[in-house]
Amino acid sequence: MSLAEQVLNGNIRAAARLMRDIDDNRPQAVADLKLLYPRTGNAYILGITGPPGAGKSTLVDQLTASFRKKGNRVGVVAIDPTSPFTGGAILGDRIRMNRHATDEGVFIRSLATRGALGGLSRSTSDVALVMDALGMDIVIIETVGVGQDEVDIVKAAHTTCVVMVPGLGDDIQAIKAGILEIGDIFVVNKADREGADRTARELATMLEFRMAPEGLWNPHVLKTEAQRGTGIEELVGEILQHREYLFSSESINDFLRERNLRHFMDILRDSLFKKALAFMETDGTLERLLDGMANHSVDPYSAAEKVLSALTGER
Amino acid sequence: MSLAEQVLNGNIRAAARLMRDIDDNRPQAVADLKLLYPRTGNAYILGITGPPGAGKSTLVDQLTASFRKKGNRVGVVAIDPTSPFTGGAILGDRIRMNRHATDEGVFIRSLATRGALGGLSRSTSDVALVMDALGMDIVIIETVGVGQDEVDIVKAAHTTCVVMVPGLGDDIQAIKAGILEIGDIFVVNKADREGADRTARELATMLEFRMAPEGLWNPHVLKTEAQRGTGIEELVGEILQHREYLFSSESINDFLRERNLRHFMDILRDSLFKKALAFMETDGTLERLLDGMANHSVDPYSAAEKVLSALTGER
Repeated sequence: MSLAEQVLNGNIRAAARLMRDIDDNRPQAVADLKLLYPRTGNAYILGITGPPGAGKSTLVDQLTASFRKKGNRVGVVAIDPTSPFTGGAILGDRIRMNRHATDEGVFIRSLATRGALGGLSRSTSDVALVMDALGMDIVIIETVGVGQDEVDIVKAAHTTCVVMVPGLGDDIQAIKAGILEIGDIFVVNKADREGADRTARELATMLEFRMAPEGLWNPHVLKTEAQRGTGIEELVGEILQHREYLFSSESINDFLRERNLRHFMDILRDSLFKKALAFMETDGTLERLLDGMANHSVDPYSAAEKVLSALTGER
Repeated sequence: MSLAEQVLNGNIRAAARLMRDIDDNRPQAVADLKLLYPRTGNAYILGITGPPGAGKSTLVDQLTASFRKKGNRVGVVAIDPTSPFTGGAILGDRIRMNRHATDEGVFIRSLATRGALGGLSRSTSDVALVMDALGMDIVIIETVGVGQDEVDIVKAAHTTCVVMVPGLGDDIQAIKAGILEIGDIFVVNKADREGADRTARELATMLEFRMAPEGLWNPHVLKTEAQRGTGIEELVGEILQHREYLFSSESINDFLRERNLRHFMDILRDSLFKKALAFMETDGTLERLLDGMANHSVDPYSAAEKVLSALTGER
């Protein structure tokens, strides 16, 4: 039985193996993903993003528990930040998820961002696809919103929650407009801290300035204390409301088309590059070009054009 | 006279225009870059990276002043972070550089990371190339080391300074090993703060564990107070020492080859993708594939393979 079939039968170890194959960039993984694809599209993808220290992992843990109580199977893809500066807190956070370790209905997978060969957003999409095929009802993607890659990732989510905390830096006003565009729901976590109401109010005010027209989704600001579990049910309620909105409106088709486009483009970019690399390595083209660049007789722009022409036969 | 020729004549406004053309992805920009390329390779690229709040901009400002005093012309490429979470401090920091605003020997350019079409590391390389052609002796690339892109950028620098501050998060031990690999020089800035000595000592201890063999470069840890200008001359001295090391050893050729390879690959990846996009758009292939993915009759992996085959004629 192929790995893909085993995954479709709900075999967790097969899913883990396939994810490893994806990581290792094995060609067989693509064959398996092709087999899985027609059987996917059932999982609801939830993106959780926010700055380091906002308590995202604890929130994900609580959301997982809540969805489990409702009988949902939950997959979690935690993106381990690339940055040498965001520290090693992630591993510690993951340990909190231990309470789900013996629960067959929860599947947790960390993805390291550093050195993700095929691009991080592609790997994340592929891993989420495997979780979907495995029968997870909800797939939570948790990411520190620090780089373009990480922001791209949450675009693949049906619903994106942006998690903030009171007293982060100077002023919520200083936070770039980008944050307002990516969130369907805003959460002020650690709401027992001083300044939580102010942070929530300021966020709400900023959101008012970009009110969507009647009938479209308008993000709200919720407060949670993930550590104590306060506000979690309200958050789950809001998530389900956004889901209902999404599926009752035309926007679900636009969303899916956009998501497919992005996933396809990631794969195409990746495979084009691999092909070019193989092409250049067979006949020593790459070494020749590098020698030329070293003595400045070849510039990298013309070199790229040459390879492109040769590869496509001027198509 | 072409824009390229004007840049080579030291025309700052022409350089600014070319950088804008690069940003806008104009084909003419590539033609100009090709003309510039053989006349570049003279600038020394200095990378400054570190977490938000480490005082990098102030340090860059002081380094700029110091290099100016030595008669060097200085270009600064400041990478404006992508993250919606790192806040709007950058703009404020840039204002400090105002003291150089009327100095023809200083050229400052900010690059926004969000939505950089051709990839951030490519844009940065291209902009640094223009500064090089313009006659800048030193090009300082300042980036918040938060994403893979940003880390890749400093790999293009001859010398990379990693800037830390005391009391950042819990413990220096928690900082990922990645940080040690990218730095040629480590700076503990805001050295008047409590814990500065401890941070410096811990960094030094971590570096000892990976001592390079005799004859190779071993990074040191320096302390600065950029606000007051303390430690700047020592830092410049260390940078010049690293430069001397680099050029006196074999490693300069490896470094340049590696850098050329990366720049070339960035360009190739970009142009391959543009070609594929144009190819798919001419005959409606893209729309057809997206329709297929929408009804799950086509998977994105097979779709990418089809486009690749068509584009290369199975080459």
